[in-house]
Amino acid sequence: MDWLDEVKWDRDGLVPAIAQEAGSGDVLMFAWMNREALALTLQRGEAVYWSRSRRRLWHKGEESGHVQQVHEIRLDCDADVVLLKVTQRGHEPGIACHTGRHSCFYRRLENGAWSAVDPVLKDPESIYK
Amino acid sequence: MDWLDEVKWDRDGLVPAIAQEAGSGDVLMFAWMNREALALTLQRGEAVYWSRSRRRLWHKGEESGHVQQVHEIRLDCDADVVLLKVTQRGHEPGIACHTGRHSCFYRRLENGAWSAVDPVLKDPESIYK
Repeated sequence: MDWLDEVKWDRDGLVPAIAQEAGSGDVLMFAWMNREALALTLQRGEAVYWSRSRRRLWHKGEESGHVQQVHEIRLDCDADVVLLKVTQRGHEPGIACHTGRHSCFYRRLENGAWSAVDPVLKDPESIYK
Repeated sequence: MDWLDEVKWDRDGLVPAIAQEAGSGDVLMFAWMNREALALTLQRGEAVYWSRSRRRLWHKGEESGHVQQVHEIRLDCDADVVLLKVTQRGHEPGIACHTGRHSCFYRRLENGAWSAVDPVLKDPESIYK
């Protein structure tokens, strides 16, 4: 049986994917993959997602240069979520977020409000030229 | 503005939620939350999810005793994914998975096949009596 057939794709043919930094353990981002994106991720050794807004394959870092080198691909018990262990390339420390931050999860709930607690490492204007 | 209104709930009124172990950084599981689940998670300080299969609120650990104490709630840049920093209670080391494993992401892609690489810490038969 093909490993791709064991993944339980949702009604849109997608599966949620979590990218975790291999070195730090930080959760960097969350995105979606279709079958082709997951196959390409293995093939290239770099994260390829399915952009739901743009409705096309999205090789993470194709514009920003902030590609994700993939060390490990994991699947959960229900076979419907994928976890990638990655190294975030192109900047030190790694920038996974389009806002120029390390991780997309930079807002923390504090006293009933979402508060941005992580710094911008690079101006997005200079990332997306 | 209510912090719950800032979350971009999907067409089913849900948001993906990632549970990460605060101490180790391990990604333990992935589940879904509706508005009530997220509100209750903050209120109780323990993870409450929405079970899509059972179509009801699911206080994680209600059967197994493996509750998740929540230290932090984070939101991503698109406001459509939640990250919880938790301590997995009820067993040492923590068991988040219904298979009796530490994490639900116990399968790793190896040579074109998903391989279970993490041990069962406790027999599920003795967890769910």
